Amino acid sequence: MTTAPSPLSVFDSLESEVRSYCRGWPAVFDRAQGARMYDETGRAYLDFFAGAGALNYGHNNPVLKRPLMDYLLRDGITHGLDMATTAKRAFLESFQNAVLRPRDLPYKVMFPGPTGTNAVEAALKLARKVKGRESIVSFTNAFHGMSLGSLAVTGNAFKRAGAGIPLVHGTPMPYDNYLDGQVQDFLWFERLLEDQGSGLNKPAAVIVETVQGEGGINVARPEWLRALADLCRRQDMLLIVDDIQMGCGRTGAFFSFEEAGIAPDIVTLSKSISGYGLPMSLCLFNPELDVWEPGEHNGTFRGNNPAFVTAAAALDAYWADGQMEKQTLARGEQVERALLGICDENSALGAHYRGRGLVWGLEFADKSRASAVCARAFERGLLLETSGPESEVVKLLPPLTVSAEEVDEGLEILALAVRETS
Amino acid sequence: MTTAPSPLSVFDSLESEVRSYCRGWPAVFDRAQGARMYDETGRAYLDFFAGAGALNYGHNNPVLKRPLMDYLLRDGITHGLDMATTAKRAFLESFQNAVLRPRDLPYKVMFPGPTGTNAVEAALKLARKVKGRESIVSFTNAFHGMSLGSLAVTGNAFKRAGAGIPLVHGTPMPYDNYLDGQVQDFLWFERLLEDQGSGLNKPAAVIVETVQGEGGINVARPEWLRALADLCRRQDMLLIVDDIQMGCGRTGAFFSFEEAGIAPDIVTLSKSISGYGLPMSLCLFNPELDVWEPGEHNGTFRGNNPAFVTAAAALDAYWADGQMEKQTLARGEQVERALLGICDENSALGAHYRGRGLVWGLEFADKSRASAVCARAFERGLLLETSGPESEVVKLLPPLTVSAEEVDEGLEILALAVRETS
Amino acid sequence: MTTAPSPLSVFDSLESEVRSYCRGWPAVFDRAQGARMYDETGRAYLDFFAGAGALNYGHNNPVLKRPLMDYLLRDGITHGLDMATTAKRAFLESFQNAVLRPRDLPYKVMFPGPTGTNAVEAALKLARKVKGRESIVSFTNAFHGMSLGSLAVTGNAFKRAGAGIPLVHGTPMPYDNYLDGQVQDFLWFERLLEDQGSGLNKPAAVIVETVQGEGGINVARPEWLRALADLCRRQDMLLIVDDIQMGCGRTGAFFSFEEAGIAPDIVTLSKSISGYGLPMSLCLFNPELDVWEPGEHNGTFRGNNPAFVTAAAALDAYWADGQMEKQTLARGEQVERALLGICDENSALGAHYRGRGLVWGLEFADKSRASAVCARAFERGLLLETSGPESEVVKLLPPLTVSAEEVDEGLEILALAVRETS
Amino acid sequence: MTTAPSPLSVFDSLESEVRSYCRGWPAVFDRAQGARMYDETGRAYLDFFAGAGALNYGHNNPVLKRPLMDYLLRDGITHGLDMATTAKRAFLESFQNAVLRPRDLPYKVMFPGPTGTNAVEAALKLARKVKGRESIVSFTNAFHGMSLGSLAVTGNAFKRAGAGIPLVHGTPMPYDNYLDGQVQDFLWFERLLEDQGSGLNKPAAVIVETVQGEGGINVARPEWLRALADLCRRQDMLLIVDDIQMGCGRTGAFFSFEEAGIAPDIVTLSKSISGYGLPMSLCLFNPELDVWEPGEHNGTFRGNNPAFVTAAAALDAYWADGQMEKQTLARGEQVERALLGICDENSALGAHYRGRGLVWGLEFADKSRASAVCARAFERGLLLETSGPESEVVKLLPPLTVSAEEVDEGLEILALAVRETS
Repeated sequence: MTTAPSPLSVFDSLESEVRSYCRGWPAVFDRAQGARMYDETGRAYLDFFAGAGALNYGHNNPVLKRPLMDYLLRDGITHGLDMATTAKRAFLESFQNAVLRPRDLPYKVMFPGPTGTNAVEAALKLARKVKGRESIVSFTNAFHGMSLGSLAVTGNAFKRAGAGIPLVHGTPMPYDNYLDGQVQDFLWFERLLEDQGSGLNKPAAVIVETVQGEGGINVARPEWLRALADLCRRQDMLLIVDDIQMGCGRTGAFFSFEEAGIAPDIVTLSKSISGYGLPMSLCLFNPELDVWEPGEHNGTFRGNNPAFVTAAAALDAYWADGQMEKQTLARGEQVERALLGICDENSALGAHYRGRGLVWGLEFADKSRASAVCARAFERGLLLETSGPESEVVKLLPPLTVSAEEVDEGLEILALAVRETS
Repeated sequence: MTTAPSPLSVFDSLESEVRSYCRGWPAVFDRAQGARMYDETGRAYLDFFAGAGALNYGHNNPVLKRPLMDYLLRDGITHGLDMATTAKRAFLESFQNAVLRPRDLPYKVMFPGPTGTNAVEAALKLARKVKGRESIVSFTNAFHGMSLGSLAVTGNAFKRAGAGIPLVHGTPMPYDNYLDGQVQDFLWFERLLEDQGSGLNKPAAVIVETVQGEGGINVARPEWLRALADLCRRQDMLLIVDDIQMGCGRTGAFFSFEEAGIAPDIVTLSKSISGYGLPMSLCLFNPELDVWEPGEHNGTFRGNNPAFVTAAAALDAYWADGQMEKQTLARGEQVERALLGICDENSALGAHYRGRGLVWGLEFADKSRASAVCARAFERGLLLETSGPESEVVKLLPPLTVSAEEVDEGLEILALAVRETS
Repeated sequence: MTTAPSPLSVFDSLESEVRSYCRGWPAVFDRAQGARMYDETGRAYLDFFAGAGALNYGHNNPVLKRPLMDYLLRDGITHGLDMATTAKRAFLESFQNAVLRPRDLPYKVMFPGPTGTNAVEAALKLARKVKGRESIVSFTNAFHGMSLGSLAVTGNAFKRAGAGIPLVHGTPMPYDNYLDGQVQDFLWFERLLEDQGSGLNKPAAVIVETVQGEGGINVARPEWLRALADLCRRQDMLLIVDDIQMGCGRTGAFFSFEEAGIAPDIVTLSKSISGYGLPMSLCLFNPELDVWEPGEHNGTFRGNNPAFVTAAAALDAYWADGQMEKQTLARGEQVERALLGICDENSALGAHYRGRGLVWGLEFADKSRASAVCARAFERGLLLETSGPESEVVKLLPPLTVSAEEVDEGLEILALAVRETS
Repeated sequence: MTTAPSPLSVFDSLESEVRSYCRGWPAVFDRAQGARMYDETGRAYLDFFAGAGALNYGHNNPVLKRPLMDYLLRDGITHGLDMATTAKRAFLESFQNAVLRPRDLPYKVMFPGPTGTNAVEAALKLARKVKGRESIVSFTNAFHGMSLGSLAVTGNAFKRAGAGIPLVHGTPMPYDNYLDGQVQDFLWFERLLEDQGSGLNKPAAVIVETVQGEGGINVARPEWLRALADLCRRQDMLLIVDDIQMGCGRTGAFFSFEEAGIAPDIVTLSKSISGYGLPMSLCLFNPELDVWEPGEHNGTFRGNNPAFVTAAAALDAYWADGQMEKQTLARGEQVERALLGICDENSALGAHYRGRGLVWGLEFADKSRASAVCARAFERGLLLETSGPESEVVKLLPPLTVSAEEVDEGLEILALAVRETS
């Protein structure tokens, strides 16, 4: 990859080596609108990355921007910890009306620190407190975050090694189709649970993503999720769905688990919940699990009120009816058709694709191909990242508000990038 | 405490029991300006709490608000992960010019997830990676955050119990004056380090707050901090100063450790670094410690660009010269005089006070008094919280931009509240 | 079970509730010879238990007793820590000549504390030191001991719960046939190892029993053991065979893994190694693994010299040629035929059996039946214990020196006990 | 040190590098009687080491040897797990009559695996189970054993490093006089316990040696032990005295804590409890702590019946009256006088000594001197080992049955060795 040294200089000299996206996308971004980002030279990029799922409604969406500007202008509370505020009330009401009530979900709402990993930390603490057990089961190729509690249930060996301490209290189980359908679902997991001699520390909870975004766009089948929910119920384990990346409409419905018809005990949301890319997260749980003492889990920025404002606006605008879901599924079909075409056209590449809603992955027999395709796409003005343990999957994650024309545009660049990297 | 049921209803029915501040301050806050917050009924509250240290420049400070509004208006990048952006560059330059260069600090700058606990998690990971050891030494009554890595070095037993797993890999040492001056500083700690039979797992690092905000406004003397820095150097341990609450000018100078003339290996900043109450955090470290691999620690909201905009504006406006520091120290003297008066007036109460810059604590022989004083202050329109392991300390943390008149006003209410709770 | 209160009185009043065998066998045993134990009333019991595998050569075997008496009589060193002694040299020479050299095994010999669990602790320490990793893989229904290191790789939930701390740093994998042949061997384990996103902490070693004695007489097939050895080699994990119960000829050959033709990296021996029921254990390992510093693992009784004397005598008498192995296999066939008969006769019971050499298990569809059979056998003068996570297996473990007549006698009592408990 | 290669050859070629005593004492020992050991060449060594405390009654003591030979001759049960046996009953009765009853100690008796570390593992498990907490407090320079549970409460950094996993769940506190009397006893420990913000995980128990044998012959004062017992009572922690090395009369009384007049909740005994150097250990505890389930802690060799025979004989012969205690104290005074003389004579060496009963330590300003003294003593036919974290202390531990003449003889050699190493 080529890096343009002069415009990046202060980044190079002052910012830590830990930075990563700026390496694959060597531009200095300045502004953005909808599905387009612009760098300082004015060059436009079509965004099929969407803030790693934090920008489902696109960049600086005017529907959210207006109430945000108004709120700031009138000196609405910016920072509120967990005080009651007008903005928080409006959000809670919108969330109840647009999300919980129509789906008959009885959840209590917790505002952890405003990041995904903090919501996961809260969920794990709560599960352990309720069940009085330490162990958590997660799945192969799971990603739940980088603070130590979340990292212990994350699969990636490179990220785990960063912990600097042994990550324990977690056990991985095979995700759907991990063993290529050779083994009956949950055969191993259930046998361990039933056998008093298995050596498995009885888990307090199971944490799962319905689609593994970082893990390689691995899609769990609805029947697998239902069987998992059933297993949890029978074996007295809580089911936590981490819907941080796949919730907020990414797969079509607001929650990604709706398709399977399950109701997890605990749900984490973040990324697109504020709608505007502002830090915010939620931990939802059944009321009987609400055994928290006041302040038992807290954090300085858990009351990011500007995020509440845009979050309420997003819910009101996009989730009052089924329009958004329908559109997402339609755009998804558009993507699927194109990926099918790419795979057919490049059958020699051993390419295959998978996805749901507006999250799709394209994988090649040659694992290094995905990075090459993304690099070429960037040169052609399309932002695409890889995912999977070996960065072997091209990940398509456009904003949900993308137009059909923008989808076509991006898919054409992708097809070109595939061709041009052969 | 009395709670007004009707205006709080959706909070009561939908929000988790974990909420806490809203219990002591039963109002629905709507807007805020400078050192004043206003509830929905229009009632004003003088704020001697400042977002637990996240609002050093006051609420909705117009100096920061203007560039923020401009940035949003022109569709500047909102959410940028760790891409290079115009806003990030401006922040890095301001930080270098106003903070690092004048103090001759060579730090590299890392943007972790935008919360204090995430900065601490990053600091601990880095220290463990550099030194290849698991153990961290923290201090009695330390507070570093609520995710599992940070919680393991936090003192509070109630918060620790919330972890649901044994918190290990940390050992507490006595904070300055913990043993009432009966024991020579670091006698115990150093002996453990020198003795190959002590049973102390050799620490990778020591993490310390120069003033313990949550722990009860415990103020470390400069000579104690210097001796600690010296001990770390001699014993091959990294020194991490957690300046999340005490940095950004709270004690006078930008960093709270400047007074002691030490240069920690790693520094964490958050809370007031964005200046506007927007989530942001930094982890600073000596360049030779920058052994991170790209993406080894990451997080969705580590590029909260609106926060970069207000952060740069705050640095440019308040830290280009020594004005802010001078004013903070002057206001601090004002507070100290008043607290002296309160203690003198109430000598029967066995009250005493302590603090530095604009962070002060007032403690009574009767430990329950602090909560009573804060409740009474609220009734009189002053926001004050308690701190300490038994909530035994009244904590004064006004915005640094508070006027002398506002300080007087608050201190008079405090004096009244003390009198009225006897 | 009936207990005879008067003869047991001091046991009842003074000994801890932790005692267990004395509950199922309510007699006060006084003396023993060969395969017979005698209680204080002079009643004889045929021993198909053999000290849980510690008495492979029978009780007070005269071949070992003579040199032991001679040694004690001449005031040979009794307690020697790890000093060089005449008795230790004689043992080392016998072990080399009778065991290691004929099998072409290059092992170094370590004398840990004289118990099985101590040998396992030593093996795990060494594996972790050599590989620089914490994690160990064990198998479902494994039993390796009760000190914390060994207990962490033991399967039984009741015993694990006794630890009082979470047992971590271990992961269970399915033992041979655990999933009833539905899943290809090591499919899951190997996939986890190969996948950088699996979440499995890379193991330093795998610890396995070739036949799980406590776990229910589960017999691993030679091809499974070979595939395991191969997996360990390919994946850079050490293979530890815990041969504490199954070694010393229990399955026929001296080491139980000989049949499979594998050579583990580390082997633990204890129980019958002294031959006389005297505490002794060994940890054997390939010379290149001998990275111990002097005294890095030690223990007061690691030089139990009387045990060295009987151990050498046992090796010289029983392992200079192939006689013992042949006899064990012959006796084993005798047992197998009888068990087949019992299962056929009681086909309505859903009984089945399994075993190798002179270790056999008999299981019934009704899991409580095993305990009833053992209780009835005791009444008829036969000592038999149960094994398995739910005590669902009758375990047959006669001394290897048992005569063919004694085997018949015991099997007849067993057949009666099965009949009489229906 | 010189090693004689030829007689050691099989040790060199076959035994692991972990062996240690044989390095400092390069002889092949053959037989022993009383306080004398003899090597294969017939050379005699006076033993001031006593099997590291396992041979308080000397080598092959005829008072114990006779009943042992009789027992073996008549085919008494050798290996009994936790079955009731005649030999166990005799031991329990002797222990009750000679030890517990005269001291009014109500302990229940548990037979763990026959090693010291196993008794400690049992004690820690029990304390954790009773209190439902993980953490244990131990002391600087403690030694409690090498299996993972015991090692976690052991101080020595070299031995801890051998664990291969981080040793957690334990916190060291300063042993008596650790801080040279500069700090009030338990000031730090008690403050941590009382302070809800201290960060100390509340301990289930405190484990302590009254004299630290491996740690450098550090002697706790009776008033310190009483204050510790009092602290444990007030703070709801169990007090475990590890009397493995210092019990069985080593300090005069049978239990080393009798002098202080305390009654620990749990006591571990091993080393000299069998009297003959045979592996045996006990865990004693107050009856209300006997919450074990049957078999919750077990081990193959917990019923080492020959050891019960010699143990009963030792108790009957030596502890029916106060003779042994008186003699030990007299011999101790003899040692003390001689050490005083050595220190006076060598005042330039900065030597000082400490001890109690028949355990003494001699330390020099030059830490390497102790090893040199022991090496020289060996050459002159006296067995002495070093102790302390840097092997800086010459440890005197003769059998309690040593004669006054033998004590003189050994002390003269010691004095010579000191002189000859200057």
